[in-house]
Amino acid sequence: MGEMPEVIFQPEGKHRRVTHGTTVLEAAKLMGVDLTSICGGQSSCGKCKIIVETRRDNLTSYTEAERRLLSENELKKGYRLACNAKIIDSIVITIPSESQRGHQRLQVEGIETPVKLNALVKKVTLTLPKPSLEDQTADVERLQKTLEKQYGLYDIQIGYDLLRKLPQTLRESEWKITVSIWNNQKIIDFETGAMADDNYGFAVDIGTTKIAGYLIDLNKGTLISKGALMNPQVPFGEDILSRISYAMEGDESLRELQEIVVKGVNQILTEVCNQTAISHNHVYETTIVGNTAMHHLFMGISPKFVGLSPYTPVIQKSINIKASKLGLKMNPRGNVHVLPVVAGFVGADCVAAILATEIYKSSDICFLIDIGTNTEIVIGSKDGLVATSCASGPAFEGAHIKYGMRAQTGSIEKIWINPNTLEPKCLTIDDDKPRGICGSAIVDVLAEMLKTGLMDTAGKILTDTNCHRIREGPDNLEYVLVWKEEAATEDDIVIVQSDIREIQKAKAAIYTGASILMKKLDITVDDINKAFIAGAFGTYIDPANAKIIGMFPDIPIDKIVQVGNAAGTGARMALLSKDARNTAGKIQKKIQYVELANDPKFHREYLKALYFPHLDLDCFPRTIKLLRKTLFHVAPNHQTVLKGINKMKLS
Amino acid sequence: MGEMPEVIFQPEGKHRRVTHGTTVLEAAKLMGVDLTSICGGQSSCGKCKIIVETRRDNLTSYTEAERRLLSENELKKGYRLACNAKIIDSIVITIPSESQRGHQRLQVEGIETPVKLNALVKKVTLTLPKPSLEDQTADVERLQKTLEKQYGLYDIQIGYDLLRKLPQTLRESEWKITVSIWNNQKIIDFETGAMADDNYGFAVDIGTTKIAGYLIDLNKGTLISKGALMNPQVPFGEDILSRISYAMEGDESLRELQEIVVKGVNQILTEVCNQTAISHNHVYETTIVGNTAMHHLFMGISPKFVGLSPYTPVIQKSINIKASKLGLKMNPRGNVHVLPVVAGFVGADCVAAILATEIYKSSDICFLIDIGTNTEIVIGSKDGLVATSCASGPAFEGAHIKYGMRAQTGSIEKIWINPNTLEPKCLTIDDDKPRGICGSAIVDVLAEMLKTGLMDTAGKILTDTNCHRIREGPDNLEYVLVWKEEAATEDDIVIVQSDIREIQKAKAAIYTGASILMKKLDITVDDINKAFIAGAFGTYIDPANAKIIGMFPDIPIDKIVQVGNAAGTGARMALLSKDARNTAGKIQKKIQYVELANDPKFHREYLKALYFPHLDLDCFPRTIKLLRKTLFHVAPNHQTVLKGINKMKLS
Repeated sequence: MGEMPEVIFQPEGKHRRVTHGTTVLEAAKLMGVDLTSICGGQSSCGKCKIIVETRRDNLTSYTEAERRLLSENELKKGYRLACNAKIIDSIVITIPSESQRGHQRLQVEGIETPVKLNALVKKVTLTLPKPSLEDQTADVERLQKTLEKQYGLYDIQIGYDLLRKLPQTLRESEWKITVSIWNNQKIIDFETGAMADDNYGFAVDIGTTKIAGYLIDLNKGTLISKGALMNPQVPFGEDILSRISYAMEGDESLRELQEIVVKGVNQILTEVCNQTAISHNHVYETTIVGNTAMHHLFMGISPKFVGLSPYTPVIQKSINIKASKLGLKMNPRGNVHVLPVVAGFVGADCVAAILATEIYKSSDICFLIDIGTNTEIVIGSKDGLVATSCASGPAFEGAHIKYGMRAQTGSIEKIWINPNTLEPKCLTIDDDKPRGICGSAIVDVLAEMLKTGLMDTAGKILTDTNCHRIREGPDNLEYVLVWKEEAATEDDIVIVQSDIREIQKAKAAIYTGASILMKKLDITVDDINKAFIAGAFGTYIDPANAKIIGMFPDIPIDKIVQVGNAAGTGARMALLSKDARNTAGKIQKKIQYVELANDPKFHREYLKALYFPHLDLDCFPRTIKLLRKTLFHVAPNHQTVLKGINKMKLS
Repeated sequence: MGEMPEVIFQPEGKHRRVTHGTTVLEAAKLMGVDLTSICGGQSSCGKCKIIVETRRDNLTSYTEAERRLLSENELKKGYRLACNAKIIDSIVITIPSESQRGHQRLQVEGIETPVKLNALVKKVTLTLPKPSLEDQTADVERLQKTLEKQYGLYDIQIGYDLLRKLPQTLRESEWKITVSIWNNQKIIDFETGAMADDNYGFAVDIGTTKIAGYLIDLNKGTLISKGALMNPQVPFGEDILSRISYAMEGDESLRELQEIVVKGVNQILTEVCNQTAISHNHVYETTIVGNTAMHHLFMGISPKFVGLSPYTPVIQKSINIKASKLGLKMNPRGNVHVLPVVAGFVGADCVAAILATEIYKSSDICFLIDIGTNTEIVIGSKDGLVATSCASGPAFEGAHIKYGMRAQTGSIEKIWINPNTLEPKCLTIDDDKPRGICGSAIVDVLAEMLKTGLMDTAGKILTDTNCHRIREGPDNLEYVLVWKEEAATEDDIVIVQSDIREIQKAKAAIYTGASILMKKLDITVDDINKAFIAGAFGTYIDPANAKIIGMFPDIPIDKIVQVGNAAGTGARMALLSKDARNTAGKIQKKIQYVELANDPKFHREYLKALYFPHLDLDCFPRTIKLLRKTLFHVAPNHQTVLKGINKMKLS
């Protein structure tokens, strides 16, 4: 008998091996996945719709009920009914929003960094003198002369495509038109009458997991509306490397990934435009940020060599692309400005976060971290910036954690453990019945287990605590967070030893990156004057707990600021200000990228960082005070291991 | 009974009314049109193929023989067999080159004006350093740095489309590539290996009747090959105004005219590339000249408002368009540079001719005339240029002349009349049996008839000469040039009174334009120091005869230069030199356009110019010496008419 098939549910990201022949609905229930089912599996309500994008043959074939209850179009798109489709082999299943009860928490808020309004798109209304036998000036030159006279705008160009529409429009509008000009350089559109007020832009942050979009009034600089969406590429690979691998399968795969992400961006844009009754044609510019792989995929540029050593991007500096070339549903002649990237794994989102946090002009040394599947770390000041990226993996987004899931209705987002009773208290999103654990709570539970002595600094669950929630589970030792009676799952929700190992690897990678950057700058944690934690995950974690598990350096709490989606803020700044774009370009050039793969110290530092908070306790002077009890278990041992590691030869 | 259907044969341009039910082959034979027929109309050889583009229903429907002898593809394209198809109603018939015995003379030669080689496309071969963990510079920046280091080329941009091909090409070529750079600004292509020698450009002159193309080595500045073609738009209208009318029928018609002219340009380009085994992809730039309507139609810009008062073009200055946007079969990312136009009827061909003749920098006053369906006239010097355009009509190209035809095998191109015997001597192209008269011979015959007293200065054929070749024909008086026994036609080839009327109108329009420009500059013919006659027709006419009939001012013969396709020369200069393009822009701005439609003197001057050479004989002091004999017939009368016209009120 082969391995049991693994099923992955998107967008939650939950996954588990299930018995061959399990229905999708049964699997979802078993795992506590949010999937509507009114009739309870009687093949009558047709509500438990799911989508299978690839490997459709890994489910049993369509039933009579499915053919009856699903539309022609749905069948074509790979819709199934979860109660009818049985799992034959490993498969990724997407639960469309209409089949979800709860909703996903997609972080879009970010700090507000003031920026002087200087948008690149300007709209002006003109009245042209009519041609006559005494003035036979051509239409284009007539328009240009009027722009000079009425607005002092010289040598404004007009593209070939637009040129062809000009004669008719000028005459239909009786020579009164509104012209949209990009960067004081070229006309990107014109329309009849006085329309200068309708001037909008769109700022987009494309994350590996999530896309956030912001609709902005380019005349006033105000935020009109915002929206977010799971990155629809997720079913093609959860993390950056699997996304890159998929793209490398061929031009068709690359095109598929580009099309689907553009479709996602268009979906958000359509939503925000519809909400505000703004025409797509009045959206003249879009700014895009994202990590280097997302940046490449959005443009349909192969990220192959980003994924292979020496990890070179195809282009670093910013690019302007005509909207129609990318298929964005904005004004087709509008501009898409893609911000610059630093390296294969330090992208435009990082540049945008630096722009938003303004660490590039700080006199003091600042620390910036954006924690995700890939974690970017930047340290520096106006005198210079160093940056690196570490493959922290998707553990903090719930992947590879037995009950891990994304931040969504019913996920536990906060955990405390009573040091006396060793009983946990869990807070869920939307106060719903617990269905799993999201990233912020995973950090909490480890910090709490460490503080309460349920786990040692090496990450081992301890059995000498008389805690009835610690038990030998099917996999290994586990700590029960929620009994099944109180949960939306069919089993107890637990943290298992292997979950702790996953987090150890992830946090060690992050800390090692930070530590190597500090060594590069020859500074200690005490030299850091301000720390910014960015990103969705960073918004919800408890920084004190993150430090307890040693995720990042032991910076005093009062110096830590959680800045939310700083990348999105940077994208908005670049949309509103030409100066901000220039600054982004300068930031890109200013940053010194440090390649960890290249650093001989990496492995040694990584081994030390696997401990909670660290093998070398001197690195965490503030944090160890909180851990007196646990330290007794391991402190003597620490010294021996530390010596051993320090003696390791650098290869 | 309605009017008899009129049939027009292209490319010769011959036309006549024929009896309803005449076969196309019979009509062709009757008119002496060059159409192959081996079996003589037995429906067996399948060689008398003709093409009908529009109004296919004006021929009888397909016969069994046609379905058998024509291919599927030919049937689809509107091919017919001339011996089978009968004429029901008026129709334009094109004889494809494979069905012609002779060939058309398409003027492509022009003066050679030296120009300093400074082409916009440069090709350089680069060897890039390979990326490593120590040097993770992105592909684009790596390429840019190499361009800086190896060639001192800074800030060279690369477009989005090309960007996507870069990573693969760099690695496949093992980091040695050849880059094609346009205008020191942007990369338009790259290829593996050392390919810098293959750098070509294409210069094109799009005439109303004919397209000429020149393939040029952009590294050496040499002409590689040249070719020409009838403008395939001819069946949609012989002159500019009918072409504009067709385009105004709707977007579809406009697109049709654009596509067909682009196809024509592509046909020449393919021919010259095939002759020289040069790849289309190595043709990086094309320069285009043409009159304003051709200029607009080539770009798919509606010429509607060029055709309607006040005759404004859509754009005057030069434009650069990506080749792929126009569908040109050159490097798709190459540039198409369209030269500037001056006014609705003074186009880029005129600007190019000024560039080629260098009258814009002459210290002396120059005269430039390009005679065609539309005749452009420019007068001036480095101190200023005035230009105008007159609708001279297609008479000089053989249209509206009973036996008129284009310069082609068998057309009479030169005529002398013996002043004693009054017998003509005719010279035909390729020494073939005469089939008709082309433009240069039409000028000759009128000048000779005037000199020999066969016609008076008012253009009336005189009957008091005892010349047996002068007779009353079916239409009016006529002069027999070739007896049918010596001709390839079934009738005598004659010049009829109405032919003379056509030429009178055409030449009067031209002279009036010149005369108004001279008045504008306040100069007389004696102030003109040099005259350039440009264009295909201008190459073959006898300037002395042209002056005798008063086509243009009475400039001494030794000051007249025939410059051939000067517009083509200008296009070649613009292809080879950035400075020439700048000069073209300056020329466009420098020219003062004079609108004849706007000039109150026009009608009065025109009436006077209808005479041969002119009603006011004082304008032609040199020419009248040649016309003593004829002048006796009319000179006294002249004075009376002249007084009457001069007294006419200016409206």
